[in-house]
Amino acid sequence: MGSLNLPLTAGNTRVKETRKLSRRSERSERRLFLADGPKAVEGALEVPGCVVEVFATLAATEQYAALAATAPQWTLVDDRALASLSDSVTPAGVVALCRFLDRPVEHVADAARLLAICADVRDPGNAGTVIRCADATGADGVVLAGSSVDAYNPKTVRASVGSLFHLPLAIEPDPVAAVRAAQAAGLQVLAADGTGEIELDPTAELLAAPTAWLFGNEAWGLPAELAELADHRVRIPIYGRAESLNLSTAAAVCLYASAGAQRRQ
Amino acid sequence: MGSLNLPLTAGNTRVKETRKLSRRSERSERRLFLADGPKAVEGALEVPGCVVEVFATLAATEQYAALAATAPQWTLVDDRALASLSDSVTPAGVVALCRFLDRPVEHVADAARLLAICADVRDPGNAGTVIRCADATGADGVVLAGSSVDAYNPKTVRASVGSLFHLPLAIEPDPVAAVRAAQAAGLQVLAADGTGEIELDPTAELLAAPTAWLFGNEAWGLPAELAELADHRVRIPIYGRAESLNLSTAAAVCLYASAGAQRRQ
Repeated sequence: MGSLNLPLTAGNTRVKETRKLSRRSERSERRLFLADGPKAVEGALEVPGCVVEVFATLAATEQYAALAATAPQWTLVDDRALASLSDSVTPAGVVALCRFLDRPVEHVADAARLLAICADVRDPGNAGTVIRCADATGADGVVLAGSSVDAYNPKTVRASVGSLFHLPLAIEPDPVAAVRAAQAAGLQVLAADGTGEIELDPTAELLAAPTAWLFGNEAWGLPAELAELADHRVRIPIYGRAESLNLSTAAAVCLYASAGAQRRQ
Repeated sequence: MGSLNLPLTAGNTRVKETRKLSRRSERSERRLFLADGPKAVEGALEVPGCVVEVFATLAATEQYAALAATAPQWTLVDDRALASLSDSVTPAGVVALCRFLDRPVEHVADAARLLAICADVRDPGNAGTVIRCADATGADGVVLAGSSVDAYNPKTVRASVGSLFHLPLAIEPDPVAAVRAAQAAGLQVLAADGTGEIELDPTAELLAAPTAWLFGNEAWGLPAELAELADHRVRIPIYGRAESLNLSTAAAVCLYASAGAQRRQ
């Protein structure tokens, strides 16, 4: 702990360089991102080698002393400097500078029994919520494929409520490669598709097999070519008059159906 | 159609009076609200007696001619007037002035087989998404109980993607009364509760019975006193390291579990 040093101000060069990570281009180039708030910082600190440095106010340093004890470097900053690093309206006072976590999709798919592949998910909150759901269902990884939103977007990190740090992540610009990698690893690929030929039934034997769920974009779903590559296209039954479910609730229903079926086997 | 009239401007008295419905107090007093966009307007027009008047730009009037044909009154407004009635960043050009839809909780619970009761849900997007999920699962109604967000908040209306108009809605300030009404109507009340004594199992016989699911606040869940009133407290299993699910994904998983079990019976 740099307890003998004065808190860094918003004008400090290191703070200014770190603040630039609010831009995706800067994150991609330096392969660094920010985890905001105690839940995210705690998750990051549990991943060996992930955290470079934690920035915290004096108040947060006292409040989160247990985190400070495990950080490789804990840097005091003043309130304005902290606010400049946080995208939260009410910053919790602690932000971690983290190294990118993603690994090749083949590594994430290897030996997996349950995966979530998102193709072209655009909303950062949705992406984070799907990661959280995948974590809750005990999935072995998440793949953000195609032109999906940046996994390291502050809104995605926040919506994942720490889950970004809990399970393997792959970023694969080619969604076809993501599907092929899952199949090569012995997983059946089930495309969640409102017009699918199979109706989701949590009691069906199909779901007990190792599975990668493939989810499409919030607005237009899965491109037909991609859905065709899946082993099956599965529709969530709509019993009422809603036209569809939103992405994260659909993902929760599909992933829980598989997680339950795999465990009842 | 007022096609012989000039489009109303933002300064028009009726437009100005209507715009005030962006405030909850104004909505409550007049028991009127706004449905923004073609999906919501279409849903509203399908509910007999719900729509007082539709405001639309000339472009939207041409684009949504089928809606115009079924509206009791269709009023042309200019772009600025329309934008003043819409809370959307990119207004679709059509907004309906609607009468409140809620009815007493006893009516909504009567003869229901599946209900969703939200106690103290605070985020309008969550409330709308739960309504959409309840609709998708063929539920017979939604109850917004306690100090829940206003069902007629523009964000709630939008997040429900028309579902607000598809199934019966009750607003019950007393969550205990909501639980009692469901029980009096012969429904078992299942509290979704992370510390519940029963683990959610979509194959369990318990779920086939007529059920009202009780969901709590996003941040602090259900108050213990309220959870105690339920017939059972049911936890969604967390197989990974996430601490919990968010409200709308939890609601989707619970409601689909019941909807499926009731249909497999």
